[in-house]
Amino acid sequence: MKLKTRLLPFESANFTVILDHNVAKKLDVKLGDRVIVRFNGRSLTAIVNTAKDFPIDSIGIYTNLARVLGISEGDEVEVEATSPPLSLQIIRKKLQGLKLESDEIYLLVKDIVEGKLSELELAAFVTAVHFQGMVPSEIYDFTISMVNTGQTLNLKKKPILDKHSLGGVPGDKTSLLVVPIIASLGYTIPKTSSRAITSAAGTADRMEVLAPVTFSIEEIEEIIHKTNGCIVWGGSLNLAPADDIIIRVEYPLGIDPFFIPSILAKKLAVGSTHIVLDIPTGRGTKVKTLEEARRISQSFHEIAKMLNMNLQTVATYAEEPIGHAIGPALEAREALQALKTLNPPDLVDKAASLAGTLLEMVGEKDGYEMAIEALKSGKAEKKLREIIEAQGGDPNIQPEDITLGDKTYTLHANDSGFVYYIDNSFLATLGKTAGAPIDKGAGVYIHVKLGEKVKKGQPLITIYSSSSAKLQLVEKLIEENTPILVGRTAGRRMLLEKIQYQPTRLVPLER
Amino acid sequence: MKLKTRLLPFESANFTVILDHNVAKKLDVKLGDRVIVRFNGRSLTAIVNTAKDFPIDSIGIYTNLARVLGISEGDEVEVEATSPPLSLQIIRKKLQGLKLESDEIYLLVKDIVEGKLSELELAAFVTAVHFQGMVPSEIYDFTISMVNTGQTLNLKKKPILDKHSLGGVPGDKTSLLVVPIIASLGYTIPKTSSRAITSAAGTADRMEVLAPVTFSIEEIEEIIHKTNGCIVWGGSLNLAPADDIIIRVEYPLGIDPFFIPSILAKKLAVGSTHIVLDIPTGRGTKVKTLEEARRISQSFHEIAKMLNMNLQTVATYAEEPIGHAIGPALEAREALQALKTLNPPDLVDKAASLAGTLLEMVGEKDGYEMAIEALKSGKAEKKLREIIEAQGGDPNIQPEDITLGDKTYTLHANDSGFVYYIDNSFLATLGKTAGAPIDKGAGVYIHVKLGEKVKKGQPLITIYSSSSAKLQLVEKLIEENTPILVGRTAGRRMLLEKIQYQPTRLVPLER
Repeated sequence: MKLKTRLLPFESANFTVILDHNVAKKLDVKLGDRVIVRFNGRSLTAIVNTAKDFPIDSIGIYTNLARVLGISEGDEVEVEATSPPLSLQIIRKKLQGLKLESDEIYLLVKDIVEGKLSELELAAFVTAVHFQGMVPSEIYDFTISMVNTGQTLNLKKKPILDKHSLGGVPGDKTSLLVVPIIASLGYTIPKTSSRAITSAAGTADRMEVLAPVTFSIEEIEEIIHKTNGCIVWGGSLNLAPADDIIIRVEYPLGIDPFFIPSILAKKLAVGSTHIVLDIPTGRGTKVKTLEEARRISQSFHEIAKMLNMNLQTVATYAEEPIGHAIGPALEAREALQALKTLNPPDLVDKAASLAGTLLEMVGEKDGYEMAIEALKSGKAEKKLREIIEAQGGDPNIQPEDITLGDKTYTLHANDSGFVYYIDNSFLATLGKTAGAPIDKGAGVYIHVKLGEKVKKGQPLITIYSSSSAKLQLVEKLIEENTPILVGRTAGRRMLLEKIQYQPTRLVPLER
Repeated sequence: MKLKTRLLPFESANFTVILDHNVAKKLDVKLGDRVIVRFNGRSLTAIVNTAKDFPIDSIGIYTNLARVLGISEGDEVEVEATSPPLSLQIIRKKLQGLKLESDEIYLLVKDIVEGKLSELELAAFVTAVHFQGMVPSEIYDFTISMVNTGQTLNLKKKPILDKHSLGGVPGDKTSLLVVPIIASLGYTIPKTSSRAITSAAGTADRMEVLAPVTFSIEEIEEIIHKTNGCIVWGGSLNLAPADDIIIRVEYPLGIDPFFIPSILAKKLAVGSTHIVLDIPTGRGTKVKTLEEARRISQSFHEIAKMLNMNLQTVATYAEEPIGHAIGPALEAREALQALKTLNPPDLVDKAASLAGTLLEMVGEKDGYEMAIEALKSGKAEKKLREIIEAQGGDPNIQPEDITLGDKTYTLHANDSGFVYYIDNSFLATLGKTAGAPIDKGAGVYIHVKLGEKVKKGQPLITIYSSSSAKLQLVEKLIEENTPILVGRTAGRRMLLEKIQYQPTRLVPLER
């Protein structure tokens, strides 16, 4: 049916159109059904809202839909009811516990990218995979299909080095060191990164303190052409876009069954040939033990082999945050300092280990030493400044130029002793409560490391924020919970807490 | 935050509000987040759409939300951001494969009814239960919670008899006979029924041909007070409303993990004390074998026992449709005829078997004979006419008064022989394609029964519709597929079809 567009000044999370209820009846659609809107050779699926007495020759179009299809007021669009997409049958097949074939997976991923599946249908699929798992051929097909339904970066050279972390440890600004180390040694490393999803800062949030991170594929090609590297936000690039849609569904559910195709597709889409995959391992992170890290590694290797990809997985120490800083500005400052001073040592060691591993994968000897040398010689710092400049930031930025939140709260040790426990996830929560990552200057500075001796009254952590109200929430959280435990003597106070039985102790989730 | 309402003349499937994007920011909500709207002591959860330049002291309210909360233009409402509901934690618990406790299940069901969970979250939960199953205590708790979060019918007498079918066999108008039989013998039977979900007619659709079926709880109490029985639509009664919401999520996924609490909660909510549960069993239905029927029965009995409910499960023959008619008007006509003439025999036998079982559960002897006698004596027919009158229909309606679709298509046997296969689900598809259940006169009349001898050219089925276009679609379907197979000699033509391997043969779903 051909209808004239009337632009409505509204935005919705899903594409939405308004139809007179008689027009909806004629199209044989009900409230909440989906229609295909075609304009200028492009089409999108939108949810039907209805109105009484809406002009029957017209369709109400929300701003976000108009923008994507390039529709202006009064344009003529073609509207028709969708049948349930064929891929819904594929989801039902997985719900029956059956294995999916290559062409089914491609069709499903394509329909995900084209918005043909509802959140309800996607959630059922993600949950089915959470319970059923996937066989290697399915993981492989998902990875390939995700790449083939999005844009790709083609740098026309080899090798392309890359680094990825499974995450889960706060303060992990390692990429801000690894990328300039690798690029300063003449290798190409196109680092696309994400913003914080559950953490107080993602690599894109950290880098954004130093330079813009949102670019087109062509702009990224130019930046890499100039500097061998980049640290950009992957979210706007349409690289394996099915992944972004799946993550939006997984997040509220707290499950993550697509993490292997998710990660490998993003790497394939930028043409990476040699990848080091960091698995932070420790009590306070996603991966708790070395055994678990080895098991996950095994699955990655199986798929990487099928993809003809050079992959090295490494388990890294993650019992406490990396370095001292959590939060975009605090972390950017710490990374800059590390490039200049080789401190803090844990951050530098981790960066040199990952960079060194990558260097040895492409045939270098003594990668770790090469990486340390790149830092000591100032080559890595110089390279980061080139990248900052190429991305449109100030190449002369100094650590002290970076603005932190002007309101602070410091927690002091109420006893002397040594630090025997640091609560990773609580520290991340404090950083987020203070306003990170949106408030770039918000975050947590941890003055001490595990095993360090402290005196009563010595500062343990300082929280930064630009909002007094948020800082008050932080103080309240700290009254109820302890981010850092200090014990008088090792191995003497073994009783931490007498835990009461609480039949249904549900902690509210943060939004 | 207090905001003035501006009514927008739009309806959406979910509750929707429009906020200026600066107001949304102040409330700390993004597009697609949920807010609570409070008015006059009631509240609802709605999805946020945004607008630029919407008045910042106002909130745009869709018609369906305004209707439910009783909001008029310019009313002041209180709006605040929702945190993710606690019940999302309960869903996550089930996603981790853990058993849920009573109070968790109650909270979850309450949040479902109050619209606090998104379709995404509900779909994940339903899928988790599909894969994980539930232990009896969980099924019990779900049943009780579903009842306690909705309205109930309190007839203040006992026993209350009831009948339910798991469905899956087309043409099953048995309730239109069982209810008047039982009521005519002085027992109370408040039959709430559903409209067609996947079939060509539900009991409510059939009854609606004879009388209105949409009533309030109070009206139903009055109807039963007059006649001992009713046959009404349960959908508008808010009996176990969580069930209706869950079914809306299950349906597109083709899974049904809540069928036990679903059925038992609806029965508990009307106060039923003695229930006969019909499990149609046959190749073309949901339950294929007697073994499967026995297994399902076992689960129902386990929960019914916990609920102190008298339940008798019966497996019934379902290799072919019940009687000859499929579709609301055709079936209402056949039921009326059966009450007058005791034909067709399979329908009468099924109705007498179910009614007889119920009668014996409350202490009568020879229930089957009692039921047949109620039919023969005309008491059951008289009772149905009383119920029709009490529900506002014409008590003198005759079978021939019922209008059928004026366009017909008849399929004839192209060979002589006997009927050896009837495709239940294809017949239902033909009925739906012809327009049932919305087009009440649309449906299928099946002239023959399994095993019957037919001559070449004899009519096999006649399809009724009010739309020539739909009848053409029916003809096309019949060209591609055979609803009724006629074989020349029994046991001689064993090869039905040489089936080709088709790697991904996905049949489009109907909407």
